[in-house]
Amino acid sequence: MSRRGRFITLEGGEGVGKTTNGALIRAWLEARGIEVVATREPGGTPGAERIRELLLGADGDDPLCDDAELLLVFAARAQHLARKIRPALERGAWVLCDRFTDATYAYQGAGRGGDIAQIATLERLVQGELRPDLTLLLDMPLAASQARLASRLAAQGGERDRFEQERGAFFERVRRGYLARAEAEPGRITVIDAARPLERVQADILARLETEVAAWR
Amino acid sequence: MSRRGRFITLEGGEGVGKTTNGALIRAWLEARGIEVVATREPGGTPGAERIRELLLGADGDDPLCDDAELLLVFAARAQHLARKIRPALERGAWVLCDRFTDATYAYQGAGRGGDIAQIATLERLVQGELRPDLTLLLDMPLAASQARLASRLAAQGGERDRFEQERGAFFERVRRGYLARAEAEPGRITVIDAARPLERVQADILARLETEVAAWR
Repeated sequence: MSRRGRFITLEGGEGVGKTTNGALIRAWLEARGIEVVATREPGGTPGAERIRELLLGADGDDPLCDDAELLLVFAARAQHLARKIRPALERGAWVLCDRFTDATYAYQGAGRGGDIAQIATLERLVQGELRPDLTLLLDMPLAASQARLASRLAAQGGERDRFEQERGAFFERVRRGYLARAEAEPGRITVIDAARPLERVQADILARLETEVAAWR
Repeated sequence: MSRRGRFITLEGGEGVGKTTNGALIRAWLEARGIEVVATREPGGTPGAERIRELLLGADGDDPLCDDAELLLVFAARAQHLARKIRPALERGAWVLCDRFTDATYAYQGAGRGGDIAQIATLERLVQGELRPDLTLLLDMPLAASQARLASRLAAQGGERDRFEQERGAFFERVRRGYLARAEAEPGRITVIDAARPLERVQADILARLETEVAAWR
């Protein structure tokens, strides 16, 4: 297949259902004969995952400053793009990525209060013209996503990473940051109300994907 | 002491004598009652050293792409500046740093053929207006520095890191890159002919430092 694949990103805070819905999307696309490369950020290649460990791991002896965090995010992204995303798109596969640069605007920008112009500079430097073709933003009120996250952590017995340890006000800023992105780019970003029952969430997602597949064929 | 300290960087390829001369400079400044923070790049804080490990370590399963390498270099630098260099300068200490951004221009720029404009963009993003007050560039022909490096590795039994494994043509480009920087900024960068006997090298370095200390007092 010589046609370039589609680049789909899944966005949203912790606990909004990205994993569940990502698995659905992948299966649905594959059932239509489309090669899907499902991946995530930060990470997605062995080198980028090593950078992810620095971003999410304990750093109590020397907490990462905001600039370092932002540059690590884009270092992992550069590696991910060069070694996985761009090659997949070029051979005609669809890439389904759990978080991408909208997350940087939401977390490092809105969440941490980082300089949006800096993020835009790094986005251009690392991505050139590449942007997702379609972004599905799973959105729900913070109380609902936090409850889901807490029950998942309780069930898995896992520890919260550096981001999951942040407080409610941080996640509220992240959510507003995401919604502002969607408002600015309604053509690319589709907001999915993820607080509804799963069947309704999935029906919306698949309807949007139907359109995308039809346009691509 | 309320006056800002001086920011001195030592530059040059592998095997030119940065460690030996760095120790001399530190002792000489301390003997004059100046607090010296001796540090190195990439690294210099626990977090930045963790990034250094990614930069210098084995990555055979997923070699770092050039953009990722460059962004990791500046991520480590941002951490180093925020947590060590700026605080030291502000309390009046002199910072003596083994390699800094001139090395990025020489290694990632001239050596790897990276985009100089990208490096300049990241330099502004991470450093703002901060530049070294004085840079001592230890220079010698490649044959001499490679021989020194080889005998050091033989003596220490160590393995070559990702950069030390590069070939002669790479180091030749690095050396030319450094010399071009010195030509463009003769006021800041002093080239020291490091192929001469150590006493003569050190006499030149200390003469330059005398001037710097006198201007600072």
